[in-house]
Amino acid sequence: MPQDIAPGATIGILGGGQLGRMLAMAAARLGLKTHIYAPDARSPAFEVAAAHTIAAYEDEAALAAFAKSVDVITYEFENVPARTAAILAEICPVRPNPRALETSQDRLDEKQFLSGLGIPTAPFAQVDDAGALARAVAQIGRPSILKTRRLGYDGKGQTIVREGSDLAVTFRSLGGVPAILEGVVPFVKEVSVVAARGLDGAFAAYDVCENQHEHHILSLTRVPALLSQDAAAAAIETARRVAEALDYEGVIGVEMFVTEATDGTGALRQSIIVNELAPRVHNSGHWTQDGAVTSQFEQHIRAICGWPLGSTQRCGETVEMRNLIGDEVNAWREILRDPSAHLQLYGKMEARPGRKMGHVTKVMR
Amino acid sequence: MPQDIAPGATIGILGGGQLGRMLAMAAARLGLKTHIYAPDARSPAFEVAAAHTIAAYEDEAALAAFAKSVDVITYEFENVPARTAAILAEICPVRPNPRALETSQDRLDEKQFLSGLGIPTAPFAQVDDAGALARAVAQIGRPSILKTRRLGYDGKGQTIVREGSDLAVTFRSLGGVPAILEGVVPFVKEVSVVAARGLDGAFAAYDVCENQHEHHILSLTRVPALLSQDAAAAAIETARRVAEALDYEGVIGVEMFVTEATDGTGALRQSIIVNELAPRVHNSGHWTQDGAVTSQFEQHIRAICGWPLGSTQRCGETVEMRNLIGDEVNAWREILRDPSAHLQLYGKMEARPGRKMGHVTKVMR
Repeated sequence: MPQDIAPGATIGILGGGQLGRMLAMAAARLGLKTHIYAPDARSPAFEVAAAHTIAAYEDEAALAAFAKSVDVITYEFENVPARTAAILAEICPVRPNPRALETSQDRLDEKQFLSGLGIPTAPFAQVDDAGALARAVAQIGRPSILKTRRLGYDGKGQTIVREGSDLAVTFRSLGGVPAILEGVVPFVKEVSVVAARGLDGAFAAYDVCENQHEHHILSLTRVPALLSQDAAAAAIETARRVAEALDYEGVIGVEMFVTEATDGTGALRQSIIVNELAPRVHNSGHWTQDGAVTSQFEQHIRAICGWPLGSTQRCGETVEMRNLIGDEVNAWREILRDPSAHLQLYGKMEARPGRKMGHVTKVMR
Repeated sequence: MPQDIAPGATIGILGGGQLGRMLAMAAARLGLKTHIYAPDARSPAFEVAAAHTIAAYEDEAALAAFAKSVDVITYEFENVPARTAAILAEICPVRPNPRALETSQDRLDEKQFLSGLGIPTAPFAQVDDAGALARAVAQIGRPSILKTRRLGYDGKGQTIVREGSDLAVTFRSLGGVPAILEGVVPFVKEVSVVAARGLDGAFAAYDVCENQHEHHILSLTRVPALLSQDAAAAAIETARRVAEALDYEGVIGVEMFVTEATDGTGALRQSIIVNELAPRVHNSGHWTQDGAVTSQFEQHIRAICGWPLGSTQRCGETVEMRNLIGDEVNAWREILRDPSAHLQLYGKMEARPGRKMGHVTKVMR
């Protein structure tokens, strides 16, 4: 078993956005120092960290110095370049391990990994050129969604293949990069499982989250998701199998679709289809800060330090978390007036459209 | 009404210990930056602040530069020198206002202030020399407690006057500085009220806390205190009157003794006697981080920014907070294994005897 970390140690975090910021605060609560590595001098996480490095993810000298100054390294985003992770991992443990990064940063690898475990996904096909797109559309049908294999998030790097879409134009519209065509899943709701796996293999999941998106960005999470008992258990078991297969360390977010169909007896049955893996703390887990015994941020820190996982018990009957996107953040004073609201702001200077500026959680006790 | 502060502003905090650290984290949660001013280069609060100044509280140039760099100034300890507060207040609002500092940093002024409001305290007398001590002992009796007027905390700067104590020796044992003799209160329990007053005069108290001390250091807080309804109401009303009289801004801790006596009908009645004021967040309020809707740290930040106060509602049936003193902190891993425990460590390097290293909160739901 890898060596344990003790209070007083330094956690290195790649990425200086709100997730890094909230990870740093959770680490500080446990008596740990943090060192944030991010290219942007105005990274919100710098403001709550003991140390920071402003450098590119390709700056090998800066990466080596960073890795030497910390006791364990984690990250707030899945698009950490493989070479970056490899350089760091030679000097210092990187958790979750780089395999989780590789698997989740390529949509095709991710789907193949899930299929290999027998976990249902949307139908998919590899698309390397316009010809492959034509074959994939013939197989999967329309409408379907063409996505770049790498570097997509919040709806970026994807386009819909509709009836009549010109396939060559569609393929070029994403830059002609390697892509994947995915079938459209007729889902009734979107849910996610936020769970943690410890260095010792312990697994602890929070209640299944029910998520609403607006313009491809998470807008609202409600917990617990309204699901059949079987479907909720299947969702959590799916996350457990994914974590197990990746020999995962830390908090993972697994985004899922729920479909419904009647079975042979005429009863309605819900099924779980995995959409995407996030090898990190997840936006749909922000409710745990105020609505669960242990926040997902503390849980991630505990896990990567080799410490016991905390209780994932929910604190209220239901919990609701709403993202504050763009100028929605201007309502901060009104939100503070609501005695049932917990406000968290990320310290970003500019409220650009589509930018996550903060969130509000309500715990119904 | 003074000008409001908005998210993105910078809070200046005098003092870099655990209270400053937890204030800084609460401010960050609300999208505020913090700048910590403290003389010790190893101050735990530096690790979670956007900026820090290492300088003496008497360094007038450093104070002025600090005051110019922030939007409002607060403090984590009541012994801020009057001259320091005055220099800062000329440049930037200092909240709570310096009157609260003056009143609470001198035990005699504090007792006289309380007496002036008709709030019961222990019997007391001013002691400027050994002769005055003799007169005070004649009036108050033995045993009684001789305390320095200034700079006492956690049992430091005080000594008991027993039967047979040599008064000249006793007076000299505290350094011959101006002192106060206090009668011993036959209390049945120690309680505290942690409350906040906003810039607009709004007042919000948490439930009365019941406190246990070991070697003059807070060891355990239980909430709600086991008190008669009348006594609990009197305790909170006392805190409200103190805050009102000081035109207070921020969180205040009011330490109290509870005495019991039978009234004319033979019924047992509890009375409230104020022991001490703390014009800051208070150790007996640490339970609010995990056990109340709004933590005392967030409440203090809201108050000094002129923002609406948050809900002080308790989250569990009962809440218990235990300080980790000295090497008690070595049990951190065991504590992490307890699914009902919330651990907070302060990032102090050395676990010296009597040093507050962290705390553990349990919320009984």
